[in-house]
Amino acid sequence: MDVIEVATQRRRQLVDITSFVQRSVAAGEVPEGMCHVFIPHTTAAVLINENADPDVGDDILAALAAMLPGVPWKHAEGNSDAHVMATLVGASVLVPIADGDLALGRWQGVYLLELDGPRKREVWVTCLRA
Amino acid sequence: MDVIEVATQRRRQLVDITSFVQRSVAAGEVPEGMCHVFIPHTTAAVLINENADPDVGDDILAALAAMLPGVPWKHAEGNSDAHVMATLVGASVLVPIADGDLALGRWQGVYLLELDGPRKREVWVTCLRA
Amino acid sequence: MDVIEVATQRRRQLVDITSFVQRSVAAGEVPEGMCHVFIPHTTAAVLINENADPDVGDDILAALAAMLPGVPWKHAEGNSDAHVMATLVGASVLVPIADGDLALGRWQGVYLLELDGPRKREVWVTCLRA
Repeated sequence: MDVIEVATQRRRQLVDITSFVQRSVAAGEVPEGMCHVFIPHTTAAVLINENADPDVGDDILAALAAMLPGVPWKHAEGNSDAHVMATLVGASVLVPIADGDLALGRWQGVYLLELDGPRKREVWVTCLRA
Repeated sequence: MDVIEVATQRRRQLVDITSFVQRSVAAGEVPEGMCHVFIPHTTAAVLINENADPDVGDDILAALAAMLPGVPWKHAEGNSDAHVMATLVGASVLVPIADGDLALGRWQGVYLLELDGPRKREVWVTCLRA
Repeated sequence: MDVIEVATQRRRQLVDITSFVQRSVAAGEVPEGMCHVFIPHTTAAVLINENADPDVGDDILAALAAMLPGVPWKHAEGNSDAHVMATLVGASVLVPIADGDLALGRWQGVYLLELDGPRKREVWVTCLRA
């Protein structure tokens, strides 16, 4: 397992971690298989989405925030919204490895979704042989 | 990796791809393991849900559309809603393989979720040995 | 594949299944790899979130319910809301196994999300070698 450390700058932020994941795959010596990208946190998530226009990431962040309901939160830390969004987006993605490289679609990148930053976050990357 | 090609007909649509995935598993010669179903696109997704009453799929499509907030989108292509929904539903599912067959629950099917069609889409299917 | 049986008590409920999954991993004899936790149902889901303050779980349940739109459902069984939430949260999680144990983050637990209970549910746990 490879550990990537990411320092986020804002409360909510998308961080492109594709090149870090690609480096892990290149070092992993798995020619054909799967790459598992896992967030060991409960107020952050990982997702795959467009790598071309950064406006897409801004729109995703704005929409997720606007979808949150105005319920009275019980949890006293003030970050229940982050737990809810992390639950919906998910703690891991699984991407094929082909010819020793991450096999993403043309417009796909892998992103850490910070939901309660700024913080230091870890991303755990594991390569599985097919 | 097996590539399934799907031509969608509408902007938003659920396409049952269970039988295509089952065919890939049957050809994959993995008796026990996992089947990974991956969408290499950023405005489509893959999900598991009910295979019996098509009204369930219609209700899922209607609810996802109604949950979208009325935020002003920055991305100029007019399909940010599709990126948001694809982020929430996810780019892959992972289903057990048992006795060389896809091990789904009795009411479960695997669906491509088109969010910005009509288009030609690919689905990448990979079998992993346990 | 290991089958965990869970009897839920309420319509919507989070059930901590972490210790059951850990027991499956301990029995699975996979020192390094992945643990797949799968729900073979279409009105329940599985998620990873905070294991410390139960208020977080209550907030997640309240928020998911409040996010549901008031669309007229076509499906006659009266549980389309459960299908929609199950679609958004997802039917499986994949967690690393390290040193023969489930490798979760410090605050993470694995939860069955009941969305149309009370019912008897199954959870299918499979260990994959890295």
